[in-house]
Amino acid sequence: MKITILGAGAMGSALTVPISERGHEIRLWFTKYDMPIYNEVSRGKPHPRIKVMLPDTVKLYKPDELKDVLSDVDVIIVAVSSQGVLPISKLVRETVGVPDSPILIVSKGIEVVNGRTMTMSEIVLKYTGSDKVIYVGGPSLAAELANKRPTYVVYASRYPDIALEIARAFETEYYRIDVTSDVTGVELSAALKNIYAMAFGIVEGYLEANKLSNNNLKAATLAKALHELASIVVSCGGKRETVYGLGGLGDLYVTSLGGRNSMFGRLLGSGLSVDEALEEMKRRGVGVVEGYRNAVTIKKFLEERGLAREDAPIFYSIYSILYAGGSVDILFKSLR
Amino acid sequence: MKITILGAGAMGSALTVPISERGHEIRLWFTKYDMPIYNEVSRGKPHPRIKVMLPDTVKLYKPDELKDVLSDVDVIIVAVSSQGVLPISKLVRETVGVPDSPILIVSKGIEVVNGRTMTMSEIVLKYTGSDKVIYVGGPSLAAELANKRPTYVVYASRYPDIALEIARAFETEYYRIDVTSDVTGVELSAALKNIYAMAFGIVEGYLEANKLSNNNLKAATLAKALHELASIVVSCGGKRETVYGLGGLGDLYVTSLGGRNSMFGRLLGSGLSVDEALEEMKRRGVGVVEGYRNAVTIKKFLEERGLAREDAPIFYSIYSILYAGGSVDILFKSLR
Repeated sequence: MKITILGAGAMGSALTVPISERGHEIRLWFTKYDMPIYNEVSRGKPHPRIKVMLPDTVKLYKPDELKDVLSDVDVIIVAVSSQGVLPISKLVRETVGVPDSPILIVSKGIEVVNGRTMTMSEIVLKYTGSDKVIYVGGPSLAAELANKRPTYVVYASRYPDIALEIARAFETEYYRIDVTSDVTGVELSAALKNIYAMAFGIVEGYLEANKLSNNNLKAATLAKALHELASIVVSCGGKRETVYGLGGLGDLYVTSLGGRNSMFGRLLGSGLSVDEALEEMKRRGVGVVEGYRNAVTIKKFLEERGLAREDAPIFYSIYSILYAGGSVDILFKSLR
Repeated sequence: MKITILGAGAMGSALTVPISERGHEIRLWFTKYDMPIYNEVSRGKPHPRIKVMLPDTVKLYKPDELKDVLSDVDVIIVAVSSQGVLPISKLVRETVGVPDSPILIVSKGIEVVNGRTMTMSEIVLKYTGSDKVIYVGGPSLAAELANKRPTYVVYASRYPDIALEIARAFETEYYRIDVTSDVTGVELSAALKNIYAMAFGIVEGYLEANKLSNNNLKAATLAKALHELASIVVSCGGKRETVYGLGGLGDLYVTSLGGRNSMFGRLLGSGLSVDEALEEMKRRGVGVVEGYRNAVTIKKFLEERGLAREDAPIFYSIYSILYAGGSVDILFKSLR
């Protein structure tokens, strides 16, 4: 098959490893923001984000070559930042019209479009005009996948047969793919997990800073966070069991183990103010804390769906801590 | 209320802390196996297992004083070892007949009785003759509870109203209790979690020993283990969502964080044989590995319920590793 990957960040680039191993022809398209990466990779250096050499057979394309990568293609993979999904969707349609080929999305998040929140697949569907959309979730740190470490993901689509066909074509010994029809469940889990990973980090940071051993509480936090996420998903038409599978529990767990959001949470839990914690993250050279930005959009998302404080007490406690000067005690109270 | 706790091990003794704080009168009955503990505690020393002083108001009773603790009592708590539940149930009935007061069970496991497997609540129900049984699950390390660290548990009973009444009477700021009618879900989660914690430990031990960073796989293992446990629970008439709450996910997570079973699993994953791993556990002064013993009974339990290898691939892979000379690769294959 001919595969086009739009966006050469960590995940878009990591996917070239299993997909090229299956003999598919890959065109990797760099956005203008990816050009520093292009300059490394095109000179035969490892990808700076995932620290591996991309497979030799991957063809590299520059921002002005979008038309070349979109003609005669079997699968398009959208792997830009969440903010980039709207512009790239419009650009695809302007360039080649409504695409025939299925579109796989690995971007994660919720964005505000014309004053309303939209998920990644909603944006792609509306602005490319195609509904052959497959959303990818599950615990998959890009660098691990690029290093061929076992990674189990889930492809969600309203057309599970198309998703299954692509899954069977992309699967390798170390990249294994389940298929579900529950797009809402997988997509909301991916979008909201950062907040819950931050909550988990706050609990860990608080316990560490106060030298308290309390695994009972950590376990309860994980169970209660997942319960809240499941309730939100069910309210939005998704399935509870999706949240308890790879897309929900799996992704939340891997995020809690060591992402920026849980690191930021630990700083808050240890007693730092939001500003101090953001400053410390900068000092450590760690990039944007997605969950911090996300919280505002997620609050809007929940409000639009009529979900109030009592429907998502953990989320709202995190929001209060981040934006309303709340102390971490609010989180502990929300767990009751 | 007048509360009698049968068994002065870690959990029975830890419960004296919140319950006495609520002003209840507690009689703590020591089995003959608990006498070394009695000798410490009765001389004003801390409880050797949970390292805290028991509350002053707790009255201590010796093995031959069972009749005294069973008369005029409002709640009986069964906190002996899983093997002790059958004899104590018979003894209660012989001593005072079928008890009127509700019976709370904190013992965990499955035992073989007259050639068939039975759960803790089934044994208590059959041999005491009372069906006012409440099963306690959730992530609760006894030493943490005894130190008043926040602990969230779940009380399960076919009479949720009775469970709720007791929950409201026992709850404190740090000991918080949910109530469910799904006894099967809570009880099977508690009985089977050791096996899945061992599986998680094997994956961790393997990755550590081989210096592989693979959080994607750890997250997938947790999600797949929980999925398998949920399928077993549903097959036995319990609810999937119970497994995804405090009783399942919560208890499995706390067990995986640092119990004997995950330690034993890590040793196996690092390349030790079963005998070498058992030897190493002994050398470290760590007691019985429950999951190792449990596996035989659980296999019988699953077989009696018609659940075959394909219904519980992770469990059967662990069984093969423990008792049929299987290598840890079997576990990795079972995750696919």
